[in-house]
Amino acid sequence: MSLIALLTDFGLKDGFVGSMKGVILSINPEAKIVDISHEIESFNIIEGSIVLNATYRYFPKGTIFVSVVDPGVGTERKPIIVKTKDYFFVCPDNGLLTLVLKKEKIEKIIEIKNKEFFLESDTNTFHGRDIFAPVAAYLSKGIKPEKFGDEIKNIKTNDIFEPKVLDGRIIGKIIKFDKFGNAITNIEKLPERFEIIYKDYRITKVCRNFLEGEKDKPNLIKGSFGFYELFLPMDSFKDRFNARVFEEFEILSK
Amino acid sequence: MSLIALLTDFGLKDGFVGSMKGVILSINPEAKIVDISHEIESFNIIEGSIVLNATYRYFPKGTIFVSVVDPGVGTERKPIIVKTKDYFFVCPDNGLLTLVLKKEKIEKIIEIKNKEFFLESDTNTFHGRDIFAPVAAYLSKGIKPEKFGDEIKNIKTNDIFEPKVLDGRIIGKIIKFDKFGNAITNIEKLPERFEIIYKDYRITKVCRNFLEGEKDKPNLIKGSFGFYELFLPMDSFKDRFNARVFEEFEILSK
Amino acid sequence: MSLIALLTDFGLKDGFVGSMKGVILSINPEAKIVDISHEIESFNIIEGSIVLNATYRYFPKGTIFVSVVDPGVGTERKPIIVKTKDYFFVCPDNGLLTLVLKKEKIEKIIEIKNKEFFLESDTNTFHGRDIFAPVAAYLSKGIKPEKFGDEIKNIKTNDIFEPKVLDGRIIGKIIKFDKFGNAITNIEKLPERFEIIYKDYRITKVCRNFLEGEKDKPNLIKGSFGFYELFLPMDSFKDRFNARVFEEFEILSK
Repeated sequence: MSLIALLTDFGLKDGFVGSMKGVILSINPEAKIVDISHEIESFNIIEGSIVLNATYRYFPKGTIFVSVVDPGVGTERKPIIVKTKDYFFVCPDNGLLTLVLKKEKIEKIIEIKNKEFFLESDTNTFHGRDIFAPVAAYLSKGIKPEKFGDEIKNIKTNDIFEPKVLDGRIIGKIIKFDKFGNAITNIEKLPERFEIIYKDYRITKVCRNFLEGEKDKPNLIKGSFGFYELFLPMDSFKDRFNARVFEEFEILSK
Repeated sequence: MSLIALLTDFGLKDGFVGSMKGVILSINPEAKIVDISHEIESFNIIEGSIVLNATYRYFPKGTIFVSVVDPGVGTERKPIIVKTKDYFFVCPDNGLLTLVLKKEKIEKIIEIKNKEFFLESDTNTFHGRDIFAPVAAYLSKGIKPEKFGDEIKNIKTNDIFEPKVLDGRIIGKIIKFDKFGNAITNIEKLPERFEIIYKDYRITKVCRNFLEGEKDKPNLIKGSFGFYELFLPMDSFKDRFNARVFEEFEILSK
Repeated sequence: MSLIALLTDFGLKDGFVGSMKGVILSINPEAKIVDISHEIESFNIIEGSIVLNATYRYFPKGTIFVSVVDPGVGTERKPIIVKTKDYFFVCPDNGLLTLVLKKEKIEKIIEIKNKEFFLESDTNTFHGRDIFAPVAAYLSKGIKPEKFGDEIKNIKTNDIFEPKVLDGRIIGKIIKFDKFGNAITNIEKLPERFEIIYKDYRITKVCRNFLEGEKDKPNLIKGSFGFYELFLPMDSFKDRFNARVFEEFEILSK
């Protein structure tokens, strides 16, 4: 199987994703294409990292992930292929793979340079269509990563996902809201006994399901993005608590 | 063919649907997956029922419908498989199948219990990915429904779709708006001669197409959801009449 | 391969597109279906034309494009099949193909009339499901276009895409915004030396990438829709300049 999974901030309105799929199927008519998300907030590399990280491991081995959140399109930032034991990742080198590469071991990083695999284009604004899609399609036909360019050693990462430790206190952050208004934090692990201080509230318990939460105060659950989430049962935490991305809270060990 | 059709309230932003597809293709690489909708309003089981009902019969026999609008995820509500003559429905038992089961004859209801078919998970918040997707994938490989759990006899339904009769008057309701702002009602049949009283307007005619409608008053048409719809030609009935879901109107027989 | 690409203004919420796919796969289980866009603004034939034009040529030869932005559904407007050298276009005859047909040579136009290929339906509001989807599915099985109806000679087009020339001055227009807030204009070509006057700003340069743009004034780039675009780097031109569709600007040759 040659499975290609797409994640972008292109939206579904303008046909950008349709063009990418047309390009892929022109090169490899047998490719199977799956959408992860195209509604990543424009230019938001952090959200792209979170969503890619929450999904990639559910795909079959050999899947090729094309991730394009690319504010620097057409500038000096490098298009890359990262080969890990089980997967291929094709994307701009701008931090999109930060979370994935905490778990996956890199086997090879290639800087994509070989224009033989690019689409000819009179614009420089759509590498999703002109570079990343055709490269993924050729990869899915079995072309080896090293054919696309030279090996490089380093890749950009982002430190937003590490909770800060200040004077022995741990400071966590909201890093994203999901469709239901749940607040995804950057906390993956908690001490057995803890107290989270968010605004004037104190949270000491982890719920096992959403309906177990209380209606008028922040509740905590281990969510499907791999991080703890603040939530309200059948309501939007984001709207009700007027919460914002990057808002901080304190975690005490008890 | 093993066709799996998905309907959820997960949205397209967070990658939830992408994870489900990854899970399905990991189990059955030959599965063909079609999206019905992932933009059902959060937690809105009624809207889920309406959209599933409006679409399922256009799919080939044997299609497996995975419907996840599931505010009770992780609580005692039952995950079920309903087998009808032509289709399989995989969903939580919370009323989602109300409209479908007015037309389809149930052959078997199975309560999904066999954890052998579940994904291992450290969260309890995403049964779409951890239970419903893998069960559908195994069904699509030909595993019999009874392998997933025990037969049960009853299923939850919702009475919202039945117009009320009060003192001989029929009271209809708006149950959903579509993308164009048309108001879907819960009225499937009308007497040959009728009068609908909505706000200060009286409607006595069914239009044959949208452009036949008048510009400044509510018009009526038999729509593609199987119900009568209130509309304005090339305009949003919802916005112009400030209409709301559950708003009622009266139907008189003439 | 029998590839069918879909473009509509149906949105992704109501299941309309799911029904179309169910219909197609019921007729041709081998069909491969790709979404171009379903988020075309309701009734906006111009936006439909732009997005179809920006995408179709990236698809493999033989692709069948089903385009349904159809405010006149159920009225006298004609459903048509247009066969060009490389593609088939199935749509209502209302101007949707204006831009495509500047580049593609028409081989044949068929008015779809043969009800043998339609779905039986008790509504007249959803030709996407009842006419366009089944016709595309039968086309994908190799049925010849002339089986669906009679050849006609003319097709509707729209003149919005031609810049106006007034007293030797060229007047351009914004015709669409993309997801990032970039303003797509109706200008495909510019003189080597030019000056664009937009509001109080003068633009004389074409940027090579988005980050090359200045932060507080309108910038110009050749974009992926085939037209010049007004933009702000990593920001929404639309919001910051309060720009509107059909807003005009002047182009001077220097």
